[in-house]
Amino acid sequence: MLALPLALQKLVHELNKLPSIGEKTATRLAYYLVNGKRDLAQTLAEALKVASDKVTFCKQCYFFSEEELCAICRSELRDRSLLCVIEKPADLLALERSAEFKGLYHVLHGLWSPLRGQGPEQIKLNQLLERVKQGGIKEVIIATSSTVEGDATALYLARALHELGVATSRLAQGMPRGGELEYADDLTLARALSGRNVI
Amino acid sequence: MLALPLALQKLVHELNKLPSIGEKTATRLAYYLVNGKRDLAQTLAEALKVASDKVTFCKQCYFFSEEELCAICRSELRDRSLLCVIEKPADLLALERSAEFKGLYHVLHGLWSPLRGQGPEQIKLNQLLERVKQGGIKEVIIATSSTVEGDATALYLARALHELGVATSRLAQGMPRGGELEYADDLTLARALSGRNVI
Repeated sequence: MLALPLALQKLVHELNKLPSIGEKTATRLAYYLVNGKRDLAQTLAEALKVASDKVTFCKQCYFFSEEELCAICRSELRDRSLLCVIEKPADLLALERSAEFKGLYHVLHGLWSPLRGQGPEQIKLNQLLERVKQGGIKEVIIATSSTVEGDATALYLARALHELGVATSRLAQGMPRGGELEYADDLTLARALSGRNVI
Repeated sequence: MLALPLALQKLVHELNKLPSIGEKTATRLAYYLVNGKRDLAQTLAEALKVASDKVTFCKQCYFFSEEELCAICRSELRDRSLLCVIEKPADLLALERSAEFKGLYHVLHGLWSPLRGQGPEQIKLNQLLERVKQGGIKEVIIATSSTVEGDATALYLARALHELGVATSRLAQGMPRGGELEYADDLTLARALSGRNVI
């Protein structure tokens, strides 16, 4: 690649570090940005710098925030007695889209995963227990994924929260809306059956 | 998306403008960059700015360059009597990888495409003819793609170059290396047959 200007090689190299961006995509993006899209290159550079400088984590729930407390923790409209525990920031946005939940959140930034060497200390689990200990929270909804690690984290959390005497629930598991029985996997069907509701 | 800090929304918005980066991917990338990859966000911003400020086009061949002439046009090792005409900068790197060509290049930055309203004036075609008129070039190899637009551009170019009295050739068309006859398309087979070589 002797022919490529150094500044362009460097840009390809940096883009290539992003997840799901391989060398070919990185090269294509770099060409696109230099080949007549200088404005985008400049505004993207600025957006990256500003986001990296300004965005930190909420001191209370660990969601993204530009201030000490995030917009949700600051809001007067949220029910402060209800707490929803999630794995990562993207989960918060998914729940907000459903517009069903009006309480506060707590982002763990990971799950309890012994196989990956990630224990309770690597995630914001003790911070959650400290938060509950301070009082005011009546129910904790555990909204970790329906995976082995999500289940393990939920179980671990539920035990610790029971000791603190706070009501603990978990997202219902069952058939997804629009899901056809014919194509449902065994475990989903089993969970849907065991969790069946009287109508 | 009221919950998301503005600086992060802006970053998602800018990333979303890149080709093949949809809103979901843009969001995922933005989270990744802000979620513990601050160093990458900063170096990427810097690389974008430097590339956008420094990289321009070679005055002679229109490939990317940080100087007036690109590394290939400056090189003493290249055969200045041989010129290879290509559509876009990425094609140059593909040809350089094959290490077969030792001449200079000319990047058209597009193809002649009446359907897209792109005539000879929108691409670096007149610049090519001017370059040939200045003398010193003995053969022009037209390496546009084997597509309708690539063919049209090659035909247009070949006529203009013949008038200038310079030898003109085009990349051979036929079976790709490793390509199995069973799976070859009709047109490729037809070209491979009509262009068959005596062995």
